[in-house]
Amino acid sequence: MSRRNKIYEGKAKILYEGPDPGTLIQYFKDDATAFNAQKRATLQGKGVLNNRISEYVFTQLATIGIPTHFVRSLSMREQLVRAVEIIPVEVVIRNIAAGSICKRLGLEEGTPLPRAIVEYYYKDDALGDPMVGEEHITAFGWAQDFEMDEIIHMALRINDFLSGLFTGIGIKLVDFKLEFGRFYTEEHVQIILADEISPDGCRLWDMKTNEKLDKDRFRRDLGGEIEAYQEVARRMGVLPSADI
Amino acid sequence: MSRRNKIYEGKAKILYEGPDPGTLIQYFKDDATAFNAQKRATLQGKGVLNNRISEYVFTQLATIGIPTHFVRSLSMREQLVRAVEIIPVEVVIRNIAAGSICKRLGLEEGTPLPRAIVEYYYKDDALGDPMVGEEHITAFGWAQDFEMDEIIHMALRINDFLSGLFTGIGIKLVDFKLEFGRFYTEEHVQIILADEISPDGCRLWDMKTNEKLDKDRFRRDLGGEIEAYQEVARRMGVLPSADI
Ligand SMILES: Nc1ncnc2c1ncn2[C@@H]1O[C@H](COP(=O)(O)OP(=O)(O)O)[C@@H](O)[C@H]1O
Ligand SMILES: Nc1ncnc2c1ncn2[C@@H]1O[C@H](COP(=O)(O)OP(=O)(O)O)[C@@H](O)[C@H]1O
Ligand SMILES: [Mg+2]
Ligand SMILES: [Mg+2]
Repeated sequence: MSRRNKIYEGKAKILYEGPDPGTLIQYFKDDATAFNAQKRATLQGKGVLNNRISEYVFTQLATIGIPTHFVRSLSMREQLVRAVEIIPVEVVIRNIAAGSICKRLGLEEGTPLPRAIVEYYYKDDALGDPMVGEEHITAFGWAQDFEMDEIIHMALRINDFLSGLFTGIGIKLVDFKLEFGRFYTEEHVQIILADEISPDGCRLWDMKTNEKLDKDRFRRDLGGEIEAYQEVARRMGVLPSADI
Repeated sequence: MSRRNKIYEGKAKILYEGPDPGTLIQYFKDDATAFNAQKRATLQGKGVLNNRISEYVFTQLATIGIPTHFVRSLSMREQLVRAVEIIPVEVVIRNIAAGSICKRLGLEEGTPLPRAIVEYYYKDDALGDPMVGEEHITAFGWAQDFEMDEIIHMALRINDFLSGLFTGIGIKLVDFKLEFGRFYTEEHVQIILADEISPDGCRLWDMKTNEKLDKDRFRRDLGGEIEAYQEVARRMGVLPSADI
């Protein structure tokens, strides 16, 4: 592993050069950050859990025809992915009001939204990931109109599927964040789902108790982060055996 | 119950006049039929299970904004629904080849389809529910073009959500049948999901063993119909307690 070329180190993951051209290795760290990295901690085992959970979710999304960067699992913390040109927009889909939308619009946490709402945040840590609209995205050329159409369509399909999947395991999918990228082949360019889907970027509430099973445990100092992530992995049937 | 006005008795359910105008009571029988009612049997407890399963599925679909006829549960075998004008078209969504499409297109059972395929069958027992296209549906006025657009959109959303839900409980959603109807209010007409969603009208295979958990057990004389339906209800967390 020491011979690998590090391409990028982010807040939660490291990207290494992959074995084949056009591939990358996505390594999941135990680092947790919140509030634009002003709050930091190491959560022992988080990387392993997020790797497994994200791998499971991406694999299931592929079965309904969502194109993703996931190629295959490499180890407890690593997955092989297709290298993409990341569209610098975080796509957030909300089903129930929680987090920033409560403050912004004066909504009580837990209020079901009239329908799923899609929001965009410009991915720029220095600016604090500001909320933007399709206007900004297309005007500044971060993505084109037809790309945004595809992204919205995929985001809503992903929301429907994941809402069902989490319902099946007794969890409410409150909201979640997606990243998309351009995958170039010789013949064409395709928008595919990239990055990760894990409790780091989702709000997941237990259906019966409303207990938080996601990064809000860390953000709000509730404790029990790892136990919560393990519970999500366990219900998905992907809890690494050493952690049972 | 004897004072109730019976509106219609079908192969698997009876419709009674509801307590309020515009409502009906949908009663689930234990009768099973297949091959256009040439094969018949009574499966003790099926009605109770299908009532519970359908109630659960319709309730969950409502949470993602799919309009349905379901109002509330009335008893072990009965649910209050909104009366609709049924569109006489069975909408079948297929994810994996099974049943009639295998014969029609020479596909092996179990072959994943390139993408979800939507089929239509004209609901007419005397004709054996023949397959039709959008052309026939709109030409004969069973539904208008804009209604079909809504129906397809809803059918695909329902498929995404239910594919996720069944994935979450370790089941493959191979295919399923939907019925839609026109719900009239004083102000407008709305297309809503009607009838039922249960193992009678779905193909459900265990994710790991491919064991059939649906009406194919009856169609193909595999036995264990009730145990299979109970297993589906159990995984959804809605198995009636007397049946555990
Ligand atoms: N398939 C991919 N190809 C290229 N970059 C990717 C791919 N998937 C995710 N990324 C990017 O890699 C980084 C993952 O590491 P992360 O710790 O999440 O970084 P950050 O702190 O920038 O969010 C993100 O910047 C993400 O946009
Ligand atoms: N909300 C509703 N309003 C009116 N009719 C309905 C509604 N929901 C279902 N139906 C119809 O009621 C009948 C249900 O009974 P069923 O035993 O399935 O009949 P069938 O043998 O005709 O399929 C079906 O014909 C179905 O189209
Ligand atoms: Mg990130
Ligand atoms: Mg019927």
